[in-house]
Amino acid sequence: MNCECCSEEHTDTADEMRSLFQPRTIAVFGASTNPAKVGYRVVENLLKGGYQGTIYPINPNGGEILGCPVWRSVGEISDDIDVAVMAIPARLVFDAVVECGNKGVKHLVVITSGFSEVGNIEEEERIVAYAREHGMRVLGPNVFGVYSDACSMNATFGPSGILSGHVAIVTQSGALGIAMIGKTAAEALGLSAVVSVGNKADVDESDLLEYLGRDDNTRVILLYIEGVKHGDRLARALRWVTQRKHVVVIKSGRSKRGAMAAASHTGSLAGADDVFDAVMKQSGALRAESVQDAFNWVQYLATAPAPIGKDAVIITNGGGIGVMATDACEKFDIALFDDQKVLKEAFSDVMPDFGSSKNPVDLTGQANAQDYEKALDAALNEENIHSVMALYCETALFDTEEFGRLIRKTYAQFKERKPILFTLFGGAKIEALVRELRMDAIPVFANVYEAVSCLGVLYRSWRNHQHARPAPASMSLPIERITEILRTAGKQQRGFLLAHEAAAVSAALGFRMPQSMVAANLDEAVQAAENIGYPVVLKIVSKDIIHKSDAGGVALDLQTREEVIDAYQAILRACRVYKRDAKIEGMEVAEMVRAGVETIIGARQDRSFGPTVMVGLGGIYVEVLKDVAFRAAPVDRATALEMIADLRSFPLLLGVRGEKRKDIEAVADVIVTLSHLIDQCRELTDIEINPLVAYDVGEGAKAVDVRILFQTPEEVR
Amino acid sequence: MNCECCSEEHTDTADEMRSLFQPRTIAVFGASTNPAKVGYRVVENLLKGGYQGTIYPINPNGGEILGCPVWRSVGEISDDIDVAVMAIPARLVFDAVVECGNKGVKHLVVITSGFSEVGNIEEEERIVAYAREHGMRVLGPNVFGVYSDACSMNATFGPSGILSGHVAIVTQSGALGIAMIGKTAAEALGLSAVVSVGNKADVDESDLLEYLGRDDNTRVILLYIEGVKHGDRLARALRWVTQRKHVVVIKSGRSKRGAMAAASHTGSLAGADDVFDAVMKQSGALRAESVQDAFNWVQYLATAPAPIGKDAVIITNGGGIGVMATDACEKFDIALFDDQKVLKEAFSDVMPDFGSSKNPVDLTGQANAQDYEKALDAALNEENIHSVMALYCETALFDTEEFGRLIRKTYAQFKERKPILFTLFGGAKIEALVRELRMDAIPVFANVYEAVSCLGVLYRSWRNHQHARPAPASMSLPIERITEILRTAGKQQRGFLLAHEAAAVSAALGFRMPQSMVAANLDEAVQAAENIGYPVVLKIVSKDIIHKSDAGGVALDLQTREEVIDAYQAILRACRVYKRDAKIEGMEVAEMVRAGVETIIGARQDRSFGPTVMVGLGGIYVEVLKDVAFRAAPVDRATALEMIADLRSFPLLLGVRGEKRKDIEAVADVIVTLSHLIDQCRELTDIEINPLVAYDVGEGAKAVDVRILFQTPEEVR
Repeated sequence: MNCECCSEEHTDTADEMRSLFQPRTIAVFGASTNPAKVGYRVVENLLKGGYQGTIYPINPNGGEILGCPVWRSVGEISDDIDVAVMAIPARLVFDAVVECGNKGVKHLVVITSGFSEVGNIEEEERIVAYAREHGMRVLGPNVFGVYSDACSMNATFGPSGILSGHVAIVTQSGALGIAMIGKTAAEALGLSAVVSVGNKADVDESDLLEYLGRDDNTRVILLYIEGVKHGDRLARALRWVTQRKHVVVIKSGRSKRGAMAAASHTGSLAGADDVFDAVMKQSGALRAESVQDAFNWVQYLATAPAPIGKDAVIITNGGGIGVMATDACEKFDIALFDDQKVLKEAFSDVMPDFGSSKNPVDLTGQANAQDYEKALDAALNEENIHSVMALYCETALFDTEEFGRLIRKTYAQFKERKPILFTLFGGAKIEALVRELRMDAIPVFANVYEAVSCLGVLYRSWRNHQHARPAPASMSLPIERITEILRTAGKQQRGFLLAHEAAAVSAALGFRMPQSMVAANLDEAVQAAENIGYPVVLKIVSKDIIHKSDAGGVALDLQTREEVIDAYQAILRACRVYKRDAKIEGMEVAEMVRAGVETIIGARQDRSFGPTVMVGLGGIYVEVLKDVAFRAAPVDRATALEMIADLRSFPLLLGVRGEKRKDIEAVADVIVTLSHLIDQCRELTDIEINPLVAYDVGEGAKAVDVRILFQTPEEVR
Repeated sequence: MNCECCSEEHTDTADEMRSLFQPRTIAVFGASTNPAKVGYRVVENLLKGGYQGTIYPINPNGGEILGCPVWRSVGEISDDIDVAVMAIPARLVFDAVVECGNKGVKHLVVITSGFSEVGNIEEEERIVAYAREHGMRVLGPNVFGVYSDACSMNATFGPSGILSGHVAIVTQSGALGIAMIGKTAAEALGLSAVVSVGNKADVDESDLLEYLGRDDNTRVILLYIEGVKHGDRLARALRWVTQRKHVVVIKSGRSKRGAMAAASHTGSLAGADDVFDAVMKQSGALRAESVQDAFNWVQYLATAPAPIGKDAVIITNGGGIGVMATDACEKFDIALFDDQKVLKEAFSDVMPDFGSSKNPVDLTGQANAQDYEKALDAALNEENIHSVMALYCETALFDTEEFGRLIRKTYAQFKERKPILFTLFGGAKIEALVRELRMDAIPVFANVYEAVSCLGVLYRSWRNHQHARPAPASMSLPIERITEILRTAGKQQRGFLLAHEAAAVSAALGFRMPQSMVAANLDEAVQAAENIGYPVVLKIVSKDIIHKSDAGGVALDLQTREEVIDAYQAILRACRVYKRDAKIEGMEVAEMVRAGVETIIGARQDRSFGPTVMVGLGGIYVEVLKDVAFRAAPVDRATALEMIADLRSFPLLLGVRGEKRKDIEAVADVIVTLSHLIDQCRELTDIEINPLVAYDVGEGAKAVDVRILFQTPEEVR
């Protein structure tokens, strides 16, 4: 089966990962009888968790641990070993890996720390290289282990008593991961899997997503990421998996200082946050700011039905909390149903005096439990209403217990049919009720913003599904011609292309550029101007004159033959004065570029995500206002248009103050082409067209200045 | 005593309000023996709460309620009555108010609803007018009552069992207010006062702030606002009170749709949210988005000591949670202490292996309780560290109970000296510990973002205190001259000034404008051009030609006498063609304005806040990017400069791409002048200078176009 997002065959990885999540046998290196040791805790957790396979504790001292016979080495075991967990000192790990290689072990889970995270990169690389050569995959090092509900395997030194469920957690932080497991049990959040990825020396999030995306037991995946390695693979894996499951991502190191702290903490590069954010959106992943938000989201997403439409209704017995929910709906992009006729019909029979059937439907503080129940039923039974947020402010008229009963009944009846969430606001009794209902996996909240944000992400995930785009079709580009230009330039020990080389690349890509030629003398210059058409620009061509304007080497807006002649002579004079011995190679005669809206298109190999593409509006919009949009490359035209529309300054391209709409499609085409180029030609490190001048619709866009940086194929990793 | 913020005498209001919060006697109209009635609940709450004054239940049926003798009318009571609570049907309220007037009651608390909130505005106005005439203040109508810790008075029909403390709540929403009271008890949040303001027909937030600002028992004030009336008074009151207390504001109706919902719910105008937000910042109030945030903040602010400096340190046993705290610090504007030398010295002795003494100080998961305690003590005893955030991820090495003991001990020891907050992340035991410690009013959180946001608002409030500015000095403006211009224009039934009138106002205010004069013939036009200096602009002057450019009635950038002559004739010809019978009054000859950075300065009477002032950068920055800054007027120069610096496009005024810094001070001066004008001259409804062109520093700014709208003094309320 080929992946629909990238036409690649992923099932190999998924199959390989299956034996990590569903091993028949597990060997535990460093198994110990000392309860303070990690090796003891792992065996204990495997036993307590009711692991369905066979456990082989390994310790040179032999003996017995918690009733299991201990083996002196993995070689002694006659059974095949799927997973070997390493809980031994760092200096002993390599030899153990060699033993495992000889034994034909499939997966190594290296709990041991003291590798790349403390600068010991070499040993980590040696272990991974050996393992890969001998057909083994390595999880870690520096992890707390792996839990898999599929075979009741708790191969971690974290808490026992993990609840079975539908959320998979993949975490880069060990300490936080262990604390998260504890928190899931406290919040009645059931898990299908937990994986600590640690230093990600081999297995990383992308590998795990291949398996989890195919695991029927997993409905929602929560990723905690500190630094991204191989971001292009991650983006691809996310794009594929988000078509199947909800994916919530927490990435710490959002802030500059946080990114520094993250880098020092894990030794991995924290990518620029704006690129990360853009790629997550593009990949359909839902990014949470805090663990609390992420927990709320995954808990809700694991149980909520897919919405059948966008229209939400708020039912409330308090106006104030209704207004706050409305504010939150705008923040979290939820459409409030607005058909007054339907609303009136649905609620007229159940509305108390003073109530309002407008959305938010306000039953007022005078509503009792019966009124509330009727209104809730009416909303849930109305087919034009697709999701319901029920709000309750504690009043004297309402018995809390009765409300608890009402929630249980209503939720049981409708939970498969419509997204529904409850927010209860009030005193100690209410808070106790909220806790009690949450422990029964009913989506009840004490904070209306939390409830609305959960519905918001459900809708976001739903929209991502609806508007999923296939991976962009491959694009045929003149890569040979471009590689040739790079090769020639590379011979001169340059990491950048000269103007005419960059122009040659642009021409090969079919970009429109201002017409231009180099004249050797005045006659040729005049002839060139006549051919190009006035107005033209003259520019000195000399390797000895870098700053042409400073040297008086540029003349703009020349309207006639005479002006060209005057300017030609004036430039030569000025340049002679500027640098007496400069070697003049000629005079560039170029079309004077008409004014339009200036855009900037960039493409680069991002440290974390590999090929990425960027668009912004030229000049101050990028420089001062930082108004840019990023995506992982390549992108298709629809995505390129979406990038442009993401800009705050987008209205300038739509035409303001009576101006015509600009040729947005032409700008999008350049984005698409550059995005494929940066993807196909990894020697290119940075391409920037600045400005790409966009003209009125139908008139295209011109690439005025193109800068290209590259590295030699050997430098490309 | 005069108020330092507005040199006004406020103590009258405060004295008046004192008898609402500390009444000697309370009459309850509608007191009832039926426990389902509000009139019963109020008497019951007064009794249960241990009200220190005398309660006089009033009911025409007489008898006895909960042991209190019932009076048939207020007139029968021989004692003076400070407060009369009305819990009677709307139609009976006016007569009761008349009775109270005769009796000399000081305050009416009208719980009864059915007035302006349902359109019955007239009756509400009649009640208030009568009350004010007879020396009574009215709280409400449509309220749940008032609670005051000062005399143990719970004159509400809400929950009993309110905890005594230092937070005052003023709420416009009844249902939410009652639920909030319940929540305070559930969260161990002690209250000094609660006031439901309902329809705010008379007493509003500003009156209450006068009292609460002077109440020693109140440390923090929480305002829940849906719509603002008399926003200028509110801003003034807030500016004064925020110098004494922390003020947290929740305003629902942030979103457009939410504002609509709020308007329909309370019948009051929800001001444009950006203006509200700007005025709150200007007033030193701390705006919370959700009730949950607000509760966290007030709870923390009520106990936290004032910081002695800005430098915060994070102590953590988990790298991941440390990184998230760092991210949150950037979001909430907290300075992380960065002196490596001091950090190293402070923590070197207490740091376990692998730990990092950089901030966040990471003790790693290998730290035990003793390590943690040492590090915490080191941070709290280091005088260069001004506040401490202690984070804990549940690990196997740590006993939860021991950590609870550590927190209690450390907090007790240092709570008066430094702001300190704890975040605990983990399973059921940890969550129980968090709840337990919170109930003892120790600042412990389960969510690191919540903890950091609390410290963030403490610092924000602290900075507001530090940088408090006195109210702007009064400014002498040529109001008479301006009023005269308005009077003349008003006679022509116009609500706007003509260009020359607006120019006259600008001139009176001392704004620099492009030179301009109207020529009656060609000779005069040439003479005018010579006087003004080239280049000039010609514009047709004719009441019959509105769209001058369309008529060919404008010529720009005329460089010589000859060009002026040609243009003059060409314009006349074109205008004759455009409209044969147009009456030509002359030709405006104006200075051609040099290019600079275009700004827009606006000033208007805001519906909610009265006089406000606005600045933005001209053209697309305002139109497309909505990049503007607001303040309540008047403002001083420092505030005007701060407004300019608030703009995203501010760097354009600082000079980009090698340009010189612009004359920001000249722009600020125009803001200051307009802000005083809109404040002093309430007939002016809208003033806009667009563009005000700012030149290089020292070269000033020119007001190119000034538009002024006004209403006649009779229309000004």
